[in-house]
Amino acid sequence: MSGKPVVRMAELEIDPDTIETYRALLTEEIEASVALEDGVISLNAVAIKDHPNKIRILEVYADRQAYEAHLQTPHFLKYKTETSGMVTSLTLIDVDPIVMRAKP
Amino acid sequence: MSGKPVVRMAELEIDPDTIETYRALLTEEIEASVALEDGVISLNAVAIKDHPNKIRILEVYADRQAYEAHLQTPHFLKYKTETSGMVTSLTLIDVDPIVMRAKP
Repeated sequence: MSGKPVVRMAELEIDPDTIETYRALLTEEIEASVALEDGVISLNAVAIKDHPNKIRILEVYADRQAYEAHLQTPHFLKYKTETSGMVTSLTLIDVDPIVMRAKP
Repeated sequence: MSGKPVVRMAELEIDPDTIETYRALLTEEIEASVALEDGVISLNAVAIKDHPNKIRILEVYADRQAYEAHLQTPHFLKYKTETSGMVTSLTLIDVDPIVMRAKP
Protein backbone atom coordinates (compact mmCIF):
# COMPACT_ATOMS: atom_id res chain seq x y z
CA MET A 1 0.00 0.00 0.00
CA SER A 2 1.17 3.53 -0.68
CA GLY A 3 -0.29 6.98 -0.51
CA LYS A 4 -2.55 8.29 2.18
CA PRO A 5 -5.67 6.70 3.60
CA VAL A 6 -9.01 7.29 1.96
CA VAL A 7 -11.66 7.98 4.60
CA ARG A 8 -15.31 8.58 3.88
CA MET A 9 -18.68 8.78 5.53
CA ALA A 10 -21.75 7.46 3.79
CA GLU A 11 -25.21 8.58 4.88
CA LEU A 12 -27.98 6.35 3.58
CA GLU A 13 -31.72 6.12 3.87
CA ILE A 14 -33.22 2.72 3.27
CA ASP A 15 -36.76 1.81 2.27
CA PRO A 16 -38.16 0.74 5.67
CA ASP A 17 -39.89 -2.24 4.09
CA THR A 18 -36.51 -3.66 3.10
CA ILE A 19 -34.41 -2.76 6.14
CA GLU A 20 -33.87 -6.28 7.45
CA THR A 21 -32.71 -7.57 4.07
CA TYR A 22 -30.58 -4.48 3.60
CA ARG A 23 -28.88 -4.96 6.98
CA ALA A 24 -28.09 -8.58 6.17
CA LEU A 25 -26.55 -7.66 2.80
CA LEU A 26 -24.55 -4.80 4.35
CA THR A 27 -23.26 -7.04 7.13
CA GLU A 28 -22.18 -9.71 4.65
CA GLU A 29 -20.43 -7.12 2.50
CA ILE A 30 -18.58 -5.47 5.38
CA GLU A 31 -17.45 -8.76 6.90
CA ALA A 32 -16.13 -9.96 3.53
CA SER A 33 -14.39 -6.67 2.74
CA VAL A 34 -12.44 -6.45 6.01
CA ALA A 35 -11.63 -10.18 6.00
CA LEU A 36 -10.57 -10.51 2.37
CA GLU A 37 -9.12 -7.16 1.32
CA ASP A 38 -5.75 -6.07 2.70
CA GLY A 39 -6.56 -2.47 1.86
CA VAL A 40 -9.85 -2.23 3.74
CA ILE A 41 -8.85 -0.98 7.19
CA SER A 42 -12.25 -0.61 8.82
CA LEU A 43 -15.94 -0.33 8.03
CA ASN A 44 -18.24 0.77 10.83
CA ALA A 45 -21.97 0.89 10.09
CA VAL A 46 -24.53 2.28 12.52
CA ALA A 47 -28.18 3.24 12.49
CA ILE A 48 -29.49 6.40 14.10
CA LYS A 49 -31.35 5.48 17.27
CA ASP A 50 -35.13 5.30 16.70
CA HIS A 51 -34.52 5.76 12.96
CA PRO A 52 -33.34 2.28 11.95
CA ASN A 53 -33.53 3.10 8.25
CA LYS A 54 -31.05 5.99 8.56
CA ILE A 55 -27.62 4.43 8.23
CA ARG A 56 -24.16 5.91 8.54
CA ILE A 57 -20.97 4.15 7.56
CA LEU A 58 -17.43 5.28 8.33
CA GLU A 59 -15.13 3.74 5.74
CA VAL A 60 -11.31 3.63 5.97
CA TYR A 61 -9.19 2.35 3.08
CA ALA A 62 -5.40 2.14 3.03
CA ASP A 63 -5.12 4.33 -0.06
CA ARG A 64 -6.87 5.28 -3.30
CA GLN A 65 -5.76 2.09 -5.04
CA ALA A 66 -7.25 -0.04 -2.27
CA TYR A 67 -10.52 1.87 -2.55
CA GLU A 68 -10.68 1.45 -6.33
CA ALA A 69 -9.94 -2.28 -5.98
CA HIS A 70 -12.70 -2.62 -3.38
CA LEU A 71 -15.25 -1.31 -5.88
CA GLN A 72 -14.47 -4.23 -8.22
CA THR A 73 -14.73 -7.08 -5.71
CA PRO A 74 -17.50 -9.66 -6.10
CA HIS A 75 -18.81 -9.00 -2.58
CA PHE A 76 -19.06 -5.26 -3.16
CA LEU A 77 -20.71 -5.69 -6.57
CA LYS A 78 -23.21 -8.15 -5.06
CA TYR A 79 -24.07 -5.67 -2.30
CA LYS A 80 -24.38 -2.78 -4.76
CA THR A 81 -26.61 -4.69 -7.16
CA GLU A 82 -28.86 -6.35 -4.62
CA THR A 83 -29.41 -3.22 -2.50
CA SER A 84 -29.90 -0.79 -5.39
CA GLY A 85 -33.69 -0.84 -5.06
CA MET A 86 -33.55 -0.47 -1.27
CA VAL A 87 -31.47 2.71 -0.97
CA THR A 88 -33.69 5.78 -1.27
CA SER A 89 -30.93 8.30 -0.50
CA LEU A 90 -27.14 8.11 -0.53
CA THR A 91 -24.80 10.94 0.44
CA LEU A 92 -21.04 10.39 0.32
CA ILE A 93 -18.91 12.76 2.38
CA ASP A 94 -15.15 12.79 1.88
CA VAL A 95 -13.35 13.41 5.12
CA ASP A 96 -9.79 13.79 6.37
CA PRO A 97 -8.73 11.75 9.36
CA ILE A 98 -7.69 13.72 12.43
CA VAL A 99 -7.02 10.91 14.87
CA MET A 100 -8.32 7.35 14.68
CA ARG A 101 -7.66 5.01 17.58
CA ALA A 102 -9.04 1.58 18.46
CA LYS A 103 -8.20 -1.16 20.88
CA PRO A 104 -5.86 -3.70 19.25
CA MET B 1 -17.67 -4.91 31.24
CA SER B 2 -21.30 -5.81 30.95
CA GLY B 3 -24.27 -4.59 29.00
CA LYS B 4 -24.29 -3.51 25.41
CA PRO B 5 -21.93 -1.12 23.68
CA VAL B 6 -22.65 2.58 23.68
CA VAL B 7 -22.04 4.06 20.24
CA ARG B 8 -22.41 7.68 19.37
CA MET B 9 -21.61 10.21 16.70
CA ALA B 10 -20.62 13.74 17.60
CA GLU B 11 -20.86 16.52 15.04
CA LEU B 12 -18.92 19.61 16.00
CA GLU B 13 -18.15 22.98 14.53
CA ILE B 14 -15.02 24.67 15.78
CA ASP B 15 -14.11 28.35 15.74
CA PRO B 16 -11.76 28.41 12.73
CA ASP B 17 -9.33 30.65 14.59
CA THR B 18 -8.74 27.91 17.14
CA ILE B 19 -8.78 24.83 14.94
CA GLU B 20 -5.11 23.90 15.31
CA THR B 21 -5.25 24.10 19.08
CA TYR B 22 -8.54 22.22 19.09
CA ARG B 23 -7.11 19.41 16.96
CA ALA B 24 -4.12 19.05 19.27
CA LEU B 25 -6.35 18.84 22.36
CA LEU B 26 -8.69 16.37 20.68
CA THR B 27 -5.80 14.18 19.56
CA GLU B 28 -4.32 14.14 23.06
CA GLU B 29 -7.70 13.25 24.57
CA ILE B 30 -8.44 10.44 22.12
CA GLU B 31 -4.99 8.91 22.43
CA ALA B 32 -5.20 8.93 26.23
CA SER B 33 -8.75 7.55 26.30
CA VAL B 34 -8.05 4.53 24.09
CA ALA B 35 -4.69 3.85 25.75
CA LEU B 36 -5.77 4.22 29.38
CA GLU B 37 -9.44 3.20 29.55
CA ASP B 38 -10.38 -0.46 29.15
CA GLY B 39 -13.91 0.52 28.24
CA VAL B 40 -13.09 2.88 25.38
CA ILE B 41 -13.15 0.66 22.30
CA SER B 42 -12.51 3.20 19.57
CA LEU B 43 -12.60 6.92 18.86
CA ASN B 44 -12.36 8.01 15.25
CA ALA B 45 -12.28 11.72 14.53
CA VAL B 46 -12.41 13.18 11.03
CA ALA B 47 -12.88 16.58 9.42
CA ILE B 48 -15.10 17.13 6.41
CA LYS B 49 -12.91 17.72 3.37
CA ASP B 50 -12.49 21.42 2.60
CA HIS B 51 -14.30 22.23 5.87
CA PRO B 52 -11.56 21.58 8.43
CA ASN B 53 -13.58 23.11 11.25
CA LYS B 54 -16.47 20.64 10.77
CA ILE B 55 -15.56 17.60 12.84
CA ARG B 56 -17.23 14.25 13.25
CA ILE B 57 -16.32 11.68 15.85
CA LEU B 58 -17.52 8.09 16.00
CA GLU B 59 -17.29 6.93 19.61
CA VAL B 60 -17.55 3.31 20.78
CA TYR B 61 -17.64 2.42 24.49
CA ALA B 62 -17.92 -1.07 25.94
CA ASP B 63 -21.08 -0.22 27.87
CA ARG B 64 -22.88 2.58 29.70
CA GLN B 65 -20.67 2.24 32.77
CA ALA B 66 -17.55 2.65 30.65
CA TYR B 67 -19.02 5.75 29.05
CA GLU B 68 -19.93 7.30 32.40
CA ALA B 69 -16.45 6.55 33.73
CA HIS B 70 -14.88 8.17 30.66
CA LEU B 71 -16.66 11.45 31.43
CA GLN B 72 -14.87 11.63 34.80
CA THR B 73 -11.32 11.00 33.61
CA PRO B 74 -8.71 13.77 33.93
CA HIS B 75 -7.93 13.66 30.21
CA PHE B 76 -11.60 14.06 29.21
CA LEU B 77 -12.17 16.84 31.74
CA LYS B 78 -9.06 18.65 30.49
CA TYR B 79 -10.30 18.39 26.88
CA LYS B 80 -13.80 19.54 27.81
CA THR B 81 -12.60 22.52 29.81
CA GLU B 82 -9.89 23.71 27.45
CA THR B 83 -11.99 23.38 24.28
CA SER B 84 -15.20 24.85 25.69
CA GLY B 85 -14.59 28.25 24.11
CA MET B 86 -13.61 26.73 20.75
CA VAL B 87 -16.71 24.61 20.05
CA THR B 88 -19.40 26.72 18.39
CA SER B 89 -21.81 23.83 17.76
CA LEU B 90 -22.10 20.32 19.19
CA THR B 91 -24.67 17.73 18.12
CA LEU B 92 -24.65 14.30 19.76
CA ILE B 93 -26.38 11.51 17.84
CA ASP B 94 -27.05 8.22 19.60
CA VAL B 95 -26.70 5.33 17.20
CA ASP B 96 -27.05 1.56 17.24
CA PRO B 97 -24.21 -0.50 15.78
CA ILE B 98 -25.10 -2.64 12.77
CA VAL B 99 -21.72 -4.10 11.95
CA MET B 100 -18.32 -2.76 12.97
CA ARG B 101 -15.21 -4.40 11.58
CA ALA B 102 -11.56 -3.39 11.60
CA LYS B 103 -8.26 -5.01 10.82
CA PRO B 104 -6.76 -6.54 13.97
